[in-house]
Amino acid sequence: MVKNEWGSSIYPLIPGHEIVGVVTEVGSKVQKFKVGDKVGVGCMVSACHSCDNCSNHLENYCPKMILTYGAKYYDGTTTYGGYSDTMISDEHFVIRILDNLPLDVGAPLLCAGITVYSPLRFYGLDKPGMHVGVVGLSGLGHVAVKFAKAMGVKVTIISTSPNKKKEALEHLGADSFLVSKDQDQMQHPLIPLFGLLKTQGKLVMVGAPEKPFELPVFPLLMGRKLVGGSGIGGMKETQEMIDFAAKHNITSDIEVIPIDYVNTAMERLLKADVRYRFVIDIGNTLKSSS
Amino acid sequence: MVKNEWGSSIYPLIPGHEIVGVVTEVGSKVQKFKVGDKVGVGCMVSACHSCDNCSNHLENYCPKMILTYGAKYYDGTTTYGGYSDTMISDEHFVIRILDNLPLDVGAPLLCAGITVYSPLRFYGLDKPGMHVGVVGLSGLGHVAVKFAKAMGVKVTIISTSPNKKKEALEHLGADSFLVSKDQDQMQHPLIPLFGLLKTQGKLVMVGAPEKPFELPVFPLLMGRKLVGGSGIGGMKETQEMIDFAAKHNITSDIEVIPIDYVNTAMERLLKADVRYRFVIDIGNTLKSSS
Repeated sequence: MVKNEWGSSIYPLIPGHEIVGVVTEVGSKVQKFKVGDKVGVGCMVSACHSCDNCSNHLENYCPKMILTYGAKYYDGTTTYGGYSDTMISDEHFVIRILDNLPLDVGAPLLCAGITVYSPLRFYGLDKPGMHVGVVGLSGLGHVAVKFAKAMGVKVTIISTSPNKKKEALEHLGADSFLVSKDQDQMQHPLIPLFGLLKTQGKLVMVGAPEKPFELPVFPLLMGRKLVGGSGIGGMKETQEMIDFAAKHNITSDIEVIPIDYVNTAMERLLKADVRYRFVIDIGNTLKSSS
Repeated sequence: MVKNEWGSSIYPLIPGHEIVGVVTEVGSKVQKFKVGDKVGVGCMVSACHSCDNCSNHLENYCPKMILTYGAKYYDGTTTYGGYSDTMISDEHFVIRILDNLPLDVGAPLLCAGITVYSPLRFYGLDKPGMHVGVVGLSGLGHVAVKFAKAMGVKVTIISTSPNKKKEALEHLGADSFLVSKDQDQMQHPLIPLFGLLKTQGKLVMVGAPEKPFELPVFPLLMGRKLVGGSGIGGMKETQEMIDFAAKHNITSDIEVIPIDYVNTAMERLLKADVRYRFVIDIGNTLKSSS
């Protein structure tokens, strides 16, 4: 469920924030794109362009950033996402997708991809010879493995499902696989993760659980470790990420579905029954309601 | 109360890990010191010298580091700290104290000083123009202000005691003073601190509370903030810190007491009734028990 300002949803709601398509029309002042270009839109469609964050290409941390859907746009209308056959966007928030990156497998990179790419870069976890652990083999996790491997680091997947081992090692190319599942760990999930970090190791969160974690401070002191966060990425870095993906053949593993399968897909999502992202073929399956 | 391996104390216990004195004797292979040199010993007296941490001048994070007191030495004896009239130490763990840094006001720097100096450096909070907050005006906090000011950063002291404002601004030279005390904050202390951090701000812990903190993850995501830890510092950095203190006239504010005042001092410590460190004049007041 999508929330407006992390509260209640605004209806009508058109979700979708990993959106790809082809430019059909451009405004008279548009400089970056022309009709026929392959493009994408991710989690946000505007920002203030004047704060410190915006000045540092961090529109994602702009206090006035506007989410792609379920948020209020400048004119008071609600923003609508990608479950629609057309979309209008400010060119600054549109990503160019190189021809060798197919649109369907590239789409999830616009949120899942940048969410994992940005912290790998920012926290300096991208140096060949380093060893990165990816907790959870999911929509985000599986592309994290691919980006990290392309950066030259060793990757261990930490998963609660022993039966994902073959997939992790053989299909995704992870270097090792660690099963983690016990009662104590579910209650104090940070402690075993800190235990896996060497001195000056970094634990980076890219998603928030409903309840706060318990933070044991002692392991932070004893090895100068840190817990950091990261939320998607700025537009410049998102373009860099997509270009990096195109260059290194990094794609999301997807299952393409028609729009009328979406309720079934949601049920399967709740059971983690997808490897690893559903992509809706809006163009071929969404019927006009008029 | 000092704990061995963070468990129960070993008796007899001789505490004291901010120790200063004058060299009275050196072993035949000692190269760094000669009789008459002013020296200090901090929190540790040995480490393995072969692990990754030791190789990187981080003896403080060596898994085999031996604490100055209450720990087991190689020969099975217990290490004894500075509440004694003589002490023998491996020269690698002895700090040279320059002549212009008086021993008494320099002593607390060997633990309190390095504990705050190291994270200011490591987490890059030492760049002129930056703004650093110091939570708690204490034995550590007051030297943190002095180090940070000498590094050229702006300092705000965050304290629960409004009556420390004059002291903070006029005596310690802090740039601003913020009173923080309400019921909610006592229960969720990290949330208001995160609120004070700008994007990519860093919250560094140098002490551990008895219970884990609640870690709200959302503020970490929304501004790429981090919570880090730091524990004292390596020997090379401790020497650098002491030399920096000598150069910039950074001293601990102290109250010198005789050894027979120590129980009263402990009671006053519990009431935070000291500005800011008691220093025991062992040399002049400790009587031999023989």
